[in-house]
Amino acid sequence: MPDKKLGGAGLRGQSAGTTSLCTVGQSGTGLTYRGYDITDLANHAQFEEVAHLLLQGHLPNQKELDDYKTRLVSQRGLPSELKSALELIPKDAHPMDVMRTGCSILGNLEQELDFSQQQSSTERMLALFPAIICYWYRFSHDGVRIDTEDTSEDTTGGYFLKLLTDKTPSELHKQVMHCSLTVYAEHEFNASTFAARVCASTLSDIHSCVTAAIGTLRGPLHGGANEAAMAMIENWTTPEQAEEEILKMLAAKDKIMGFGHAVYRESDPRNALIKQWSKALSEATGDTHLYAVSERVESVMKREKGLFCNADFFHASAYHFMDIPTKLFTPIFVISRLTGWAAHVYEQRANNRIIRPSADYDGPEHQDWLPIDKRS
Amino acid sequence: MPDKKLGGAGLRGQSAGTTSLCTVGQSGTGLTYRGYDITDLANHAQFEEVAHLLLQGHLPNQKELDDYKTRLVSQRGLPSELKSALELIPKDAHPMDVMRTGCSILGNLEQELDFSQQQSSTERMLALFPAIICYWYRFSHDGVRIDTEDTSEDTTGGYFLKLLTDKTPSELHKQVMHCSLTVYAEHEFNASTFAARVCASTLSDIHSCVTAAIGTLRGPLHGGANEAAMAMIENWTTPEQAEEEILKMLAAKDKIMGFGHAVYRESDPRNALIKQWSKALSEATGDTHLYAVSERVESVMKREKGLFCNADFFHASAYHFMDIPTKLFTPIFVISRLTGWAAHVYEQRANNRIIRPSADYDGPEHQDWLPIDKRS
Repeated sequence: MPDKKLGGAGLRGQSAGTTSLCTVGQSGTGLTYRGYDITDLANHAQFEEVAHLLLQGHLPNQKELDDYKTRLVSQRGLPSELKSALELIPKDAHPMDVMRTGCSILGNLEQELDFSQQQSSTERMLALFPAIICYWYRFSHDGVRIDTEDTSEDTTGGYFLKLLTDKTPSELHKQVMHCSLTVYAEHEFNASTFAARVCASTLSDIHSCVTAAIGTLRGPLHGGANEAAMAMIENWTTPEQAEEEILKMLAAKDKIMGFGHAVYRESDPRNALIKQWSKALSEATGDTHLYAVSERVESVMKREKGLFCNADFFHASAYHFMDIPTKLFTPIFVISRLTGWAAHVYEQRANNRIIRPSADYDGPEHQDWLPIDKRS
Repeated sequence: MPDKKLGGAGLRGQSAGTTSLCTVGQSGTGLTYRGYDITDLANHAQFEEVAHLLLQGHLPNQKELDDYKTRLVSQRGLPSELKSALELIPKDAHPMDVMRTGCSILGNLEQELDFSQQQSSTERMLALFPAIICYWYRFSHDGVRIDTEDTSEDTTGGYFLKLLTDKTPSELHKQVMHCSLTVYAEHEFNASTFAARVCASTLSDIHSCVTAAIGTLRGPLHGGANEAAMAMIENWTTPEQAEEEILKMLAAKDKIMGFGHAVYRESDPRNALIKQWSKALSEATGDTHLYAVSERVESVMKREKGLFCNADFFHASAYHFMDIPTKLFTPIFVISRLTGWAAHVYEQRANNRIIRPSADYDGPEHQDWLPIDKRS
């Protein structure tokens, strides 16, 4: 029998292909998209500039950015069949199942017929994903059929907040969304992106690739860490209580979500970027304890386990300060990561070989056939 | 820059984990499921015995088989929301998009809440997948709302044929379906199964895993070869014409679907198994040319290119003789391969590490941030 390590090794450290999109954890860079440092992008760019960088290959000039945003804004109308289907999904469904299904249905209604349509199919998804999740959420939870062809906000993050809350989002909230969508946009061969590439390698359509990726991001070992972090910190009202409870959890060897990373060894460069916004939001909203609780958890985890916050931990408080329901945290990740997934699909298609690894066999040797009346 | 081979290497020959389910192409065996030779299974077993072998770990005795089939027959009722959603999908949709969407919607309505439900969630899919595709097909193409709770056939293959044609299938047709569903059930770390395992490795739910696998099977480099073979041979009415046209296609370096394999080197053990049934169906239906055309294509490909038929080539004529529309060939593959996908999901979950490979970077070096008004 092979040892356990082989079976669960997860291809860690093995190259499964090439990419020009992203470096993760390389010395001196931390995280780059097409050579641009994540800190520059998250502090200076609108999310649509980052989407353009990933999907079109370069940062847009002003006219390109304006045109890009205009195209996205013009494609916010949900097909009526998709609206009807979303209305059939119950309130207690998992929001990631709703996203996965919404994307899959869109592929039936607006099929990518050949790869020359990959850019237009992606733009349509980029325009519609906020509409899909908010239409379902508002219908199933509030009984309201929202008008998704709202053009009052010209950015993806602003549009999402407007649909969700029915209020004009503040400049601060829109800035936070640019940062959040930017830091979640791309991360090399993470599991959901790799699933998209495996799907793409059979030359399947882009809706299949993105549907596969959404289902993969749904797993608690991938997306969802910010939701789990929120579920934890929302129980605590003082830093002292947080420290006491974290110590208890560590003693019980409970898993603390939002810390450490499969690739980063010393820190996650995305943490400082979203943490500064969590602090600003805490001050703007008159928060009395949640940011302080979060900071205390961070320092206790560092002191006790040497573990650092990853991208997810301060996203929990940041999203919460913007009144986003916890169950919609991972769908926001989808709205953002769609850009990375699609860019990887284009890349896979441009230099493709079907991804078909081998396996080590540890099952039974040859078995003689036994007629059914001879079986015990 | 890394060479091109790296980028498209597709992990060929690299182990991505262990499995006890299947060996492909090992000396002397060809293809085995849990140690049983595919020839024994395809010639002697009902598909439900094979499903039980893959999913429960052993061939069932008579009582276990009877119970299993009874459970599957009892779960054929489509949820009303799923029927309504299928009715929204247009006639010209891709049938694999319908399967992918049907599975995804089911995950919303009957969520796998924890892994203790994996067997029951799989049985429900096994019972419902023929209903999903046939309900959509008959509604969109014939305007008929079929009753999927039909219990007149107690096997998966018989049930599919009954829903599709509204006629009692012959014993011959049911035997062919057992063979077909058996030979397509499992094939180690093929791309769709690997996609399911990548998804499972984040600890996502089983509907996400199967949805990802369906989208991956949809690609023309994976599923769909039998449809492409049919589209080719249906144009020819004599073996002589077939030979002439194949030689022309070879001269033009056109791809001929249904031949060769990524793993098998000398033959595909599944070909002889389905070919014998294609011959029997040809005789039973009074076919005047399609089987002869298929045999001629086989011999010309062997003579000219040394290539052998894979599992797909004689499936084309076999399905055609049973009056199955060509566009439903790959959905039958889904109904069968679901068993392999699910068994691999169980296996991944039992010894999991998130599948997260690395990539070779061939993109730009560090790029300085440029404000938008400085970009060309």
